[in-house]
Amino acid sequence: MIFTSDNWAGAHPAISASLSAHSTGFSAAYGASDLDRKVEQTFNTIFGREVAVFFVGTGTAANSLALSAVNRPGGVSFCHREAHVIADECGAPEFFSHGARLVPVDGADGKMDPAILETEIARFPAGFVHAGQPMAVTLTQATEAGTVYQPDEIRAISKIAKAHGLPLHMDGARFANALVALDLTPAQMTLDLGVDILSFGGTKNGCWCAEALVFLDPAMANQAAFIRKRAAHLFSKSRFIAAQFDAYFENDLWLDLARHSNTMADRLRTGISGSSRARLAWQSSANEIFPILSKSLSRELMAKGALFYEWTAPRAASHLVGADETMLRLVTSFATTEDQVDQFLECLG
Amino acid sequence: MIFTSDNWAGAHPAISASLSAHSTGFSAAYGASDLDRKVEQTFNTIFGREVAVFFVGTGTAANSLALSAVNRPGGVSFCHREAHVIADECGAPEFFSHGARLVPVDGADGKMDPAILETEIARFPAGFVHAGQPMAVTLTQATEAGTVYQPDEIRAISKIAKAHGLPLHMDGARFANALVALDLTPAQMTLDLGVDILSFGGTKNGCWCAEALVFLDPAMANQAAFIRKRAAHLFSKSRFIAAQFDAYFENDLWLDLARHSNTMADRLRTGISGSSRARLAWQSSANEIFPILSKSLSRELMAKGALFYEWTAPRAASHLVGADETMLRLVTSFATTEDQVDQFLECLG
Amino acid sequence: MIFTSDNWAGAHPAISASLSAHSTGFSAAYGASDLDRKVEQTFNTIFGREVAVFFVGTGTAANSLALSAVNRPGGVSFCHREAHVIADECGAPEFFSHGARLVPVDGADGKMDPAILETEIARFPAGFVHAGQPMAVTLTQATEAGTVYQPDEIRAISKIAKAHGLPLHMDGARFANALVALDLTPAQMTLDLGVDILSFGGTKNGCWCAEALVFLDPAMANQAAFIRKRAAHLFSKSRFIAAQFDAYFENDLWLDLARHSNTMADRLRTGISGSSRARLAWQSSANEIFPILSKSLSRELMAKGALFYEWTAPRAASHLVGADETMLRLVTSFATTEDQVDQFLECLG
Amino acid sequence: MIFTSDNWAGAHPAISASLSAHSTGFSAAYGASDLDRKVEQTFNTIFGREVAVFFVGTGTAANSLALSAVNRPGGVSFCHREAHVIADECGAPEFFSHGARLVPVDGADGKMDPAILETEIARFPAGFVHAGQPMAVTLTQATEAGTVYQPDEIRAISKIAKAHGLPLHMDGARFANALVALDLTPAQMTLDLGVDILSFGGTKNGCWCAEALVFLDPAMANQAAFIRKRAAHLFSKSRFIAAQFDAYFENDLWLDLARHSNTMADRLRTGISGSSRARLAWQSSANEIFPILSKSLSRELMAKGALFYEWTAPRAASHLVGADETMLRLVTSFATTEDQVDQFLECLG
Repeated sequence: MIFTSDNWAGAHPAISASLSAHSTGFSAAYGASDLDRKVEQTFNTIFGREVAVFFVGTGTAANSLALSAVNRPGGVSFCHREAHVIADECGAPEFFSHGARLVPVDGADGKMDPAILETEIARFPAGFVHAGQPMAVTLTQATEAGTVYQPDEIRAISKIAKAHGLPLHMDGARFANALVALDLTPAQMTLDLGVDILSFGGTKNGCWCAEALVFLDPAMANQAAFIRKRAAHLFSKSRFIAAQFDAYFENDLWLDLARHSNTMADRLRTGISGSSRARLAWQSSANEIFPILSKSLSRELMAKGALFYEWTAPRAASHLVGADETMLRLVTSFATTEDQVDQFLECLG
Repeated sequence: MIFTSDNWAGAHPAISASLSAHSTGFSAAYGASDLDRKVEQTFNTIFGREVAVFFVGTGTAANSLALSAVNRPGGVSFCHREAHVIADECGAPEFFSHGARLVPVDGADGKMDPAILETEIARFPAGFVHAGQPMAVTLTQATEAGTVYQPDEIRAISKIAKAHGLPLHMDGARFANALVALDLTPAQMTLDLGVDILSFGGTKNGCWCAEALVFLDPAMANQAAFIRKRAAHLFSKSRFIAAQFDAYFENDLWLDLARHSNTMADRLRTGISGSSRARLAWQSSANEIFPILSKSLSRELMAKGALFYEWTAPRAASHLVGADETMLRLVTSFATTEDQVDQFLECLG
Repeated sequence: MIFTSDNWAGAHPAISASLSAHSTGFSAAYGASDLDRKVEQTFNTIFGREVAVFFVGTGTAANSLALSAVNRPGGVSFCHREAHVIADECGAPEFFSHGARLVPVDGADGKMDPAILETEIARFPAGFVHAGQPMAVTLTQATEAGTVYQPDEIRAISKIAKAHGLPLHMDGARFANALVALDLTPAQMTLDLGVDILSFGGTKNGCWCAEALVFLDPAMANQAAFIRKRAAHLFSKSRFIAAQFDAYFENDLWLDLARHSNTMADRLRTGISGSSRARLAWQSSANEIFPILSKSLSRELMAKGALFYEWTAPRAASHLVGADETMLRLVTSFATTEDQVDQFLECLG
Repeated sequence: MIFTSDNWAGAHPAISASLSAHSTGFSAAYGASDLDRKVEQTFNTIFGREVAVFFVGTGTAANSLALSAVNRPGGVSFCHREAHVIADECGAPEFFSHGARLVPVDGADGKMDPAILETEIARFPAGFVHAGQPMAVTLTQATEAGTVYQPDEIRAISKIAKAHGLPLHMDGARFANALVALDLTPAQMTLDLGVDILSFGGTKNGCWCAEALVFLDPAMANQAAFIRKRAAHLFSKSRFIAAQFDAYFENDLWLDLARHSNTMADRLRTGISGSSRARLAWQSSANEIFPILSKSLSRELMAKGALFYEWTAPRAASHLVGADETMLRLVTSFATTEDQVDQFLECLG
């Protein structure tokens, strides 16, 4: 009963098998191997156009490199208050961009409210030297709240970004989970809605460590190779990331894994909704759910062997949690089994 | 006949097998798993004392984090002119340390000359605000020239560093190759000679991507966890690095692989020394050798299928290369076979 | 009728005279002149102990250098939401500290609320690598709201900082205005209350450009000379700053100038309080006041020649401003005259 | 007899008078005053075209901001080995540019040798990610050796820079001294020869602290306002720099001061050339001269009250200095008198 995080899972057997298969023989280092090229081509196919792809090992690297690729002196990026870039990366985006600032934007359900985004951007008027200058908008899909932005919601944010001349970045650490939740193609969820740069995550969905920084418009990537290398994120045996992605994309494995993960979350969600001892803080549709229950029940679940984090409720949701209550975060993954879910629900009662 | 670089090899089967074996099940992320702890303990055993270990994915990351862990405003580090940190990392050490400078120190055979090191350090007098201030000395073992520092040579450099209060870092991207060349223990080649921080490389010697930043005195590591995380070099599924190291150390596999690699280089060296069509630019003892031969012979070798880099001779050695000649760099690895070597020597004639 | 900012004034005649007097003759550069030494000694006298003083030319430089002197990887500093460091410096503190973050702390009247400060610090638990780590608390005295922290209020903040092992910085761009408002000595307003580092401002109070970064404990300044030089803030003819401070301190000129400035603000305050056409948004006691009045009256005042900024009300005060109203910021300085004030009040009616 | 540095002088009386004259009254802060605008216009006139001018307080700031305005990830700038940017600024250019590297270029008489510059640039092939990428060439006029680049010499360097698509920066800390030595106009010594960005120095030539970062093509300055502000180099009472420049340019005072300074150096030069006890290390033509003499004579001169620095000879000139000899650096300024010079020459004998 492990629901701590999707990164507590290991790697899918097909990923491991691919690594083994590609471990022999010699091939060009630093991303120049045939396998690297093949996978780059796969990304082109997936997005239906030529994109610029840079493999890295962590989602934080992808996010931080993305923002530093559009860096400006005195730059300010806008993200949701609970976004990974501002809440969980120890200041990596600021470090990579030499101090460009992240400004939190509020909004329900882990999504930036377009009106608040507009207000925050307006606090940095063009040319006003004392305040810094806007440089990017970044949103997370699926969000840290387990929700997914609907296409119209992304379009609304994209429209604001474009109106201010700002590139739009998507942190897709759980890209596949959002994709299958919305039943869209990668291009439909990004390009068609105005996303410019994507952190394409594979790690949380069955890879060991496979993330790709994708510039949907390759023209924006003209410095990216140097930005990555300078940050020590270019792997010499880059094909070990390519090998993971190669298996990840084979026969749409990635979508199957995300579908499984979401289905397990649905099963949890349904069970919890039917329980009299817990309720959902909000509706989510990807692989994270946030039930509220009594502190004693939380302890009881732990005692019975369930692993999860008690979660600090976002400001906007803190009133939902009673004095004797706590909010949990439950995360499912490709490796979560029906048995684990059912056992948890049985413990919950 | 691939002698381009040891990072053109893949991973040793035992490494791949370990990854597969550890891919199932759930375990704590971000370095907190049992396997991470086990491998950290192995490092303690290897060095005969408690050390602080931080897994990272690239040698450039290990080097850059090491230098930023001892960073000072206006800081200056001293390295050999041909060192990886100054010659091959796209300014990563400067980026990580916010502009701390690397000062090249000359010396024969890829090794810093202690007298020149002393002279260079003296150009930065204590408290003289215009020049910057010394912050570290870093040496590479084995060197980029395929040579290895003898214990006395490391001691001489260490003594200078200590006299100026400077920490001594060792870039051990080819640590194992040096170790078996000298037939020393890890502690004998580091701790006993005054090395403070070590970039312990596994990637070039049979791993996919396994590097460890080792603080031989854990007290120097008090900020390192934050330095690594902020640079996006903390892996969520950190156990995939631990799994590589676990197999790497099992039954001294790492030493066997390095020994094989060095033996293959010896075989090349012996063959080239006996050839009338090539000569060695200098004597090396690890897994890189640098023959000088005619440009036409170089082309001939390529035509016959040998892969290698023509190498820019270091300043001190450029007079050795005649007008119609070129210098090659040949690198062997755990995956190099006797057949490959013999085939190359046969082509050489 | 110029109330835009105290930095719209020029320099006090005594400051100019001092510059002229010291312009002839030769003396050691980079802060080593007799005059530099004399003024450093004056700072010791003012604070009643040996302090470490570094002259710089802008308040932003003093603040940014102060924070970078206590910089930590992944560091987070806490300041009031309206503080100059976070609101008006184009990200300079982040730039100087390579991305250390500023976290806004709310509180009425431009002052951090100790309970909120405590809550914000608690969001960065010791050793929790994902969140960054606390590195400093910085408060502004007098505040951007024209208020001054009472000694007990500073002590409450200092106590929290100390409990977390954090240095306490004071942005004293309007240090003198606060000092005379509270009728305290410099040591009473800093040292005795736990302030560790002070940005001591002279520019807004009659100097051309004279700011001092003061480490009340010189031991904290061990890297400061390099930090300043590396940021290009060490002046070769440093004595031109010393000359300004020399006149500034002579016969307590600085306190007289601040007293005058505050008195002019009092006169405005009294007048506005007595007006039926405007009211004060909150009570302030230094040289900035914030009246609320109708937009039409604001335009009327401008038309009559008054210069000032319409000010964006802080979040906590925005409800005070009616739909047809606006908030002004009026700043007085050493150069403000009673006539200017009375003329303004007459226009106000 | 003070020949330590031109920054040991104070300010010219006309500069001080201008500061006094402009000290009264109110005017817009942060560079928006009428006087700021007037002086900006003067720069346009001086260069015969519209230029973008940013006032700063130190030459190091001007240089560092110039290089950061053309910053690239993994960037490398090329300068003479003895240039101020690499030898005397405590790593400020690296700090401002987040680690962009300075590569020293050798050459006689303090001037980059074009052939060596070409060789050094060639070490950073376009797109080769391991080496970093060229970003700028910077030369110093007059040089640190007291020499001046002839127009053809600047053109040769400019041609190389342009061929590689690199902007050319000129460190003009002693711009006026070079100008009068060559009898050229500002445009002839910069624009016409391909200089793109200029650090225009006033401080060493009679100002307190007046430097201007000049973009000869304003299009290159689009981020400069933010770069300056973020580095804390925007002065609130910016008019105090404008006031200095206003007097500096009035009736060509600046050229007169530089002419005087150079004439004093000529007088020293002539005297030393005629002495049997000293000789010039090389011929210079601006306001710095470098005599070689016996160590005992150096001590004798000091004992008689002469102030100067014994100078570390550049590598290329170190063979000129005998075992019992030393090299001096003598710098004259606008404030140097004939009496001082003659007294020194008399002591020299």
